[in-house]
Amino acid sequence: MARFNINGTVCNTEMKKILSAYRLRPEGLKELEGKYKIVLPKDKSHFTKEEVMQLIPDFEVFIPAFNFYTDKEIIDRGTKLELISNYGVGFDNIDVDYATKKGIAVTNIPYSVTEPTAEFAFGLLLATARGIAYYDRKIRTPEGVSWGMYGEAGLPVFGKTLGIIGMGRIGQALARRAVASGMKIIYHNRRRLDEAIEKLYDAGYVSLETLLKEADFVSLNVPSTPETIRMIGEEQLNMMKPTAILINTARGNVVDEKALVKALKEKKIWGAGLDVFENEPHISPELLELDNVVLTPHAATKTVEYRHNMAVEMVRNIIGFYEGTYPVSRVNRLNDR
Amino acid sequence: MARFNINGTVCNTEMKKILSAYRLRPEGLKELEGKYKIVLPKDKSHFTKEEVMQLIPDFEVFIPAFNFYTDKEIIDRGTKLELISNYGVGFDNIDVDYATKKGIAVTNIPYSVTEPTAEFAFGLLLATARGIAYYDRKIRTPEGVSWGMYGEAGLPVFGKTLGIIGMGRIGQALARRAVASGMKIIYHNRRRLDEAIEKLYDAGYVSLETLLKEADFVSLNVPSTPETIRMIGEEQLNMMKPTAILINTARGNVVDEKALVKALKEKKIWGAGLDVFENEPHISPELLELDNVVLTPHAATKTVEYRHNMAVEMVRNIIGFYEGTYPVSRVNRLNDR
Repeated sequence: MARFNINGTVCNTEMKKILSAYRLRPEGLKELEGKYKIVLPKDKSHFTKEEVMQLIPDFEVFIPAFNFYTDKEIIDRGTKLELISNYGVGFDNIDVDYATKKGIAVTNIPYSVTEPTAEFAFGLLLATARGIAYYDRKIRTPEGVSWGMYGEAGLPVFGKTLGIIGMGRIGQALARRAVASGMKIIYHNRRRLDEAIEKLYDAGYVSLETLLKEADFVSLNVPSTPETIRMIGEEQLNMMKPTAILINTARGNVVDEKALVKALKEKKIWGAGLDVFENEPHISPELLELDNVVLTPHAATKTVEYRHNMAVEMVRNIIGFYEGTYPVSRVNRLNDR
Repeated sequence: MARFNINGTVCNTEMKKILSAYRLRPEGLKELEGKYKIVLPKDKSHFTKEEVMQLIPDFEVFIPAFNFYTDKEIIDRGTKLELISNYGVGFDNIDVDYATKKGIAVTNIPYSVTEPTAEFAFGLLLATARGIAYYDRKIRTPEGVSWGMYGEAGLPVFGKTLGIIGMGRIGQALARRAVASGMKIIYHNRRRLDEAIEKLYDAGYVSLETLLKEADFVSLNVPSTPETIRMIGEEQLNMMKPTAILINTARGNVVDEKALVKALKEKKIWGAGLDVFENEPHISPELLELDNVVLTPHAATKTVEYRHNMAVEMVRNIIGFYEGTYPVSRVNRLNDR
């Protein structure tokens, strides 16, 4: 059997070769052992685009993640590419249309990210409304924080209305938490959910405008698509209550960040909890100065265990794609070509 | 009808006179209008002990709150006192035994604080585990925070075990939230709950030792009593998992704060979310330096709306006590004398 060399390692040519842009921990990749050859960055967290461009001609599978953008150039250079197995549920980091044209399958991982993301979104909601992050920050400064009856008070959550924009898996997992916390649910979605699902959360389907006007909390749980990019701008922020809080764990570009900064500074809305930003890892410097916002570094799925589970789901997409032994979360259909 | 003067205001002698240690907002006190005379601090948040000592001989009702300690001296001086109507559920700020001996009724407000406190406890749990408060603090510093795959990762909540010490109203309201968030519940209580309640949360009754050894999260929801003071000390902290998180929204003196600082510094436990402290508003300076703790200023019920609801419940204890038109949350029975 012919053997050749990738990155200093001798490989079996019958093995499909996988290039991972990010250094994933080996525990999550175990199922590939002996059947696939995977190359990961060794001494750093991720490859640069230049390194990927250099390596990719030899690989059948590419694993991008986060903000690593898999563009036409990379796809053109990946002449052997059969599968782009995304380490994430959102696939706005991949030129899926171009991959489809080139006959390359694209997969994502919707299941392992659902509970972690909903959990983080609800944590951001509580931390913003109840002042938890603000108190923890201020209490450590020389001026300290109020211990009094009403000073620097947060906002109540119990009995309030949560408007969920994007009532998919994550939106519903968030609704489950919110209902148990005494919240009422309204939602907006591309299409209305089955009545049975609405009943589970006693959730009312409303227009985007109604949602923005009536919700005490607005949570963004949509993918980034041409239809959702900047769907929350100045006009939409002005529709929200002055006591409302915006939570974004979806994608930064769903919100016009400049308009949001303005709304927060002018107290058009009460606050925001943001895990995502338009130009990550850059955050608008004005946000860093505001006390009515809670800022986290795109960490909604960031625990070692959650990211392990994501790696397992991602690996099973690869194995399922080649061996048919697991269901595969396909983003594109190649007969769309 | 005789009229006399308290604090510059002319009163009807038939009205019961109420002294509030804290300046509560008038909206919550409306039901007293025309039937009771209430005196509150005017230009400051609360009366000093000296001021209360001076005023109290004229009053039938006293409203303490938080750390305002109603001691023997105050009770002795309050020769007309009939009722101490606490603005809080915990009544460790009142010498209840002495009040009982003197024939003074004591009431508290268990209902209005339940959901707010459970909500805050769960928010602290999420903010600590998922790093939300830490990220928000660090992201604003010049060194910033990791945006990488595993750097500065938090801990998962979904699928983990929450050990609730004190499974009363607040403990159960916390359990409801935790179950909806995918957590398993174990609990320790003075006495085991009815099976029907256990089934609601699929909650297992365990010894304190088992709880400390098995829980990924330990939440304190007990009142401060001679039995619970410092119930969590070095020995108990050493029983906890190194990956465990302690949440305290009960009372600071339930935990040996010095032992907790040591455990956090030596990473005997992973972290803590603390809303209460042994010597409020003083916090052990070492806690302020630690990154594995989230610190809030006894704010579990602090929103204007929640504190309004608390005032209404407290006022109804007074009205119920004198007029029998509301149920009264009595802390003591006067035939215990």
